[in-house]
Amino acid sequence: MKNILILGAGLSASSLIRYLLKHAEKENWFLQIVDKDLDLVKSKIGDSKNAEALAFNVLSQEERVPFIRNAELVISMLPARFHYEIAKDCVAEKKNLITPSYISKEMRGLDIAAKDAEITILNEIGVDPGIDHMSAMKILDEIKDKGGEIHAFKSFCGGLVAPQSDNNPWNYKFTWNPRNVVLAGQGNAACFIQENEYKYIPYNRLFGRLDSIHIPKLGEFEGYANRDSLSYREIYKLRNIPTIYRGTLRKKGFAESWNIFVQLGMTDDSYTMDHIQRLTNRSFLNAFLPYHKTATVEEKFMKYIDNRQDIYDKFEWLGIFEKEPLDLVNATPAQLLEKILRDKWMLEPRDKDMLVMYHLFEYKDSEGNTHQIESFMSNIGEDETYTSMSNTVGLPVAIAAKMLLKNEITQKGVILPINKEIYEPILKELAELGIVFVENIE
Amino acid sequence: MKNILILGAGLSASSLIRYLLKHAEKENWFLQIVDKDLDLVKSKIGDSKNAEALAFNVLSQEERVPFIRNAELVISMLPARFHYEIAKDCVAEKKNLITPSYISKEMRGLDIAAKDAEITILNEIGVDPGIDHMSAMKILDEIKDKGGEIHAFKSFCGGLVAPQSDNNPWNYKFTWNPRNVVLAGQGNAACFIQENEYKYIPYNRLFGRLDSIHIPKLGEFEGYANRDSLSYREIYKLRNIPTIYRGTLRKKGFAESWNIFVQLGMTDDSYTMDHIQRLTNRSFLNAFLPYHKTATVEEKFMKYIDNRQDIYDKFEWLGIFEKEPLDLVNATPAQLLEKILRDKWMLEPRDKDMLVMYHLFEYKDSEGNTHQIESFMSNIGEDETYTSMSNTVGLPVAIAAKMLLKNEITQKGVILPINKEIYEPILKELAELGIVFVENIE
Repeated sequence: MKNILILGAGLSASSLIRYLLKHAEKENWFLQIVDKDLDLVKSKIGDSKNAEALAFNVLSQEERVPFIRNAELVISMLPARFHYEIAKDCVAEKKNLITPSYISKEMRGLDIAAKDAEITILNEIGVDPGIDHMSAMKILDEIKDKGGEIHAFKSFCGGLVAPQSDNNPWNYKFTWNPRNVVLAGQGNAACFIQENEYKYIPYNRLFGRLDSIHIPKLGEFEGYANRDSLSYREIYKLRNIPTIYRGTLRKKGFAESWNIFVQLGMTDDSYTMDHIQRLTNRSFLNAFLPYHKTATVEEKFMKYIDNRQDIYDKFEWLGIFEKEPLDLVNATPAQLLEKILRDKWMLEPRDKDMLVMYHLFEYKDSEGNTHQIESFMSNIGEDETYTSMSNTVGLPVAIAAKMLLKNEITQKGVILPINKEIYEPILKELAELGIVFVENIE
Repeated sequence: MKNILILGAGLSASSLIRYLLKHAEKENWFLQIVDKDLDLVKSKIGDSKNAEALAFNVLSQEERVPFIRNAELVISMLPARFHYEIAKDCVAEKKNLITPSYISKEMRGLDIAAKDAEITILNEIGVDPGIDHMSAMKILDEIKDKGGEIHAFKSFCGGLVAPQSDNNPWNYKFTWNPRNVVLAGQGNAACFIQENEYKYIPYNRLFGRLDSIHIPKLGEFEGYANRDSLSYREIYKLRNIPTIYRGTLRKKGFAESWNIFVQLGMTDDSYTMDHIQRLTNRSFLNAFLPYHKTATVEEKFMKYIDNRQDIYDKFEWLGIFEKEPLDLVNATPAQLLEKILRDKWMLEPRDKDMLVMYHLFEYKDSEGNTHQIESFMSNIGEDETYTSMSNTVGLPVAIAAKMLLKNEITQKGVILPINKEIYEPILKELAELGIVFVENIE
């Protein structure tokens, strides 16, 4: 039996565990799954004899090293900040490691040590990052193989609510950590390059500078810039590309209304509103509107949004004007807003989520003719456990795990899934599992 | 002879040193002035026999303690972050200390120790903070003494260019650290209370929510909210006041144009634009404007500002459209903007600066009638050395020093100049020195 050690059994581990258990008997695998919540692990294992639930402290090196030593492969589904310490153990014990998270600087620094240990540390093999890399590299490589020259690459991804469950005026529900949604776009200005001009978009302008995206059968979307697109020139080997842009997808109309919260300062996470003891939804909003002798909060807000009834309706639907106590003390505006949104944008038990990805490539072929390729994927979740988010994060990790265990990945060191050897079989199997990219060539 | 130890002889120490030297012989004072720049100190001492220039390392406790021990009074004109360490030495050596800076939490924590040592640590005795406290407390105390009830207090202060030197379209020049001007308002949202409603203004809205202020003979000004006004309820003993607001003064029209830089993201200090190697004024601006196939930077900017020619002229005057290399590598937007502004907003050799302060009080007298008092001060600098900033910071410090040396301040502990015993004689002498408040009662 080959032991697979899985650290963390949270939301995105469900589909991963199900896939591995399905193949465990045939492949002679045994899963050791550790999580603080032992019952959670047990519920995901069910009655399988090819797995056991463990409850040791993964943050203790002393406790985890014996398990790493005993494993053929380690998969870390822990928060990204823990990966580096685990990677160092894997180097010392010469065990392969998979994480779906962004490579950190420290992680990258382990590349030579990992090569010396002859192990593979495969990162960014979830959905975004992960499926985005693989599906983009497939087409970029195809264009390059035919002698084409890539002029522009734009890529968008969004975790959304499925059309059949899309029943609120925001056309949005939380399908991932609500806190991250409230804070999305904060920090450094987003940067990208367009026709060789470097562009920076600060947070306060992010939701006002949108791309329109039409996806066949799915309708109209919008995209706002997602952090540092420039670093992808290096990753995708597009060093001199004139245009590269990565963005986040939302249903059309979302960003304009979300921007109201941003502009008013209600997404700020840098200070606590400790001056006000008994905040309500209404007084929280009013704290960001100018004082007026006679106007109501509704009237002031309506004036602020230039009498846009459609926007007003969205905010009213959130209960923002209600005198409902927020019952949070010493909270930041972002935490207070999250509390208001959490109930309203929660997925209901029968709701389904949807993952949408869209790439646009412009290139010149070897004869100098300009072409455009659209490549897009949409995937709808199965239920509350096997959501689209869980499937699109967990399945690429699972397939990569299978490949590593069968020695089908030969690349050593700290790597990304950008080589054909890795992305081709994974994309092929993902398509069989319903995560399919459609291409439109013009 | 009584030794006065002065730590730091920068810009705002000029007027302080001049004042103390003027009284030194009669009062039997000897100034020991330490600064990294020994020539600077010597130039400020001139041929006086009542002072010496020292060059020891003030940041070394070992080096400074013998001088503190030997002094009757210590004045720290160092950057605020160094005051606490010096205050601890003053407590240990039982020496009075004056600083013009805001009281830090750590400094406040020394209150009991200072009382036990029977010393006075007087803080916030420059202009803002300093003269603002004293001139406000004078009127607040007068109102309270007559049985009045204070309903609203608004207070504004600005370091500006004097009318006779005001010859650029921005009606503004740097009279203080340019970096602080570029970063002004960043950090936590400004907060205040208006008619018992708590209000928070985030940075991106700060320069769009202005008060209009008319000051007789000086004309039209505007004020934007200055950080945390709410903490002044405690300081000024106005715990239940319905309205309290502190703001920064600029000439009318400044904030609207400055806001363009803020909105575009050009004042951001949180990341470096290291992707772009050879930035010019023009490409720096263009990095924050959307891409357009054919429009020039000028055309895109003009569109962004809704064809406001008056605003366009201000930016053109700054040379923002020029292809002048910025010659800064790995700089933040704020650093790049500071470089562009520094030359343009520099005080010329014969220019004079101006300090303006404006308070507005609303109160009910003991018979229930509502009154309003305006109190304002404007002060123009003498020359490049004895600027208004130097005079308004240095003179209150100097007068307070004289009072401490003459045992005219009896209050012990870590204190602010908010008691009559302190503010009354200082305001009186400041008026004699040309720093005069005018009151309008309605």
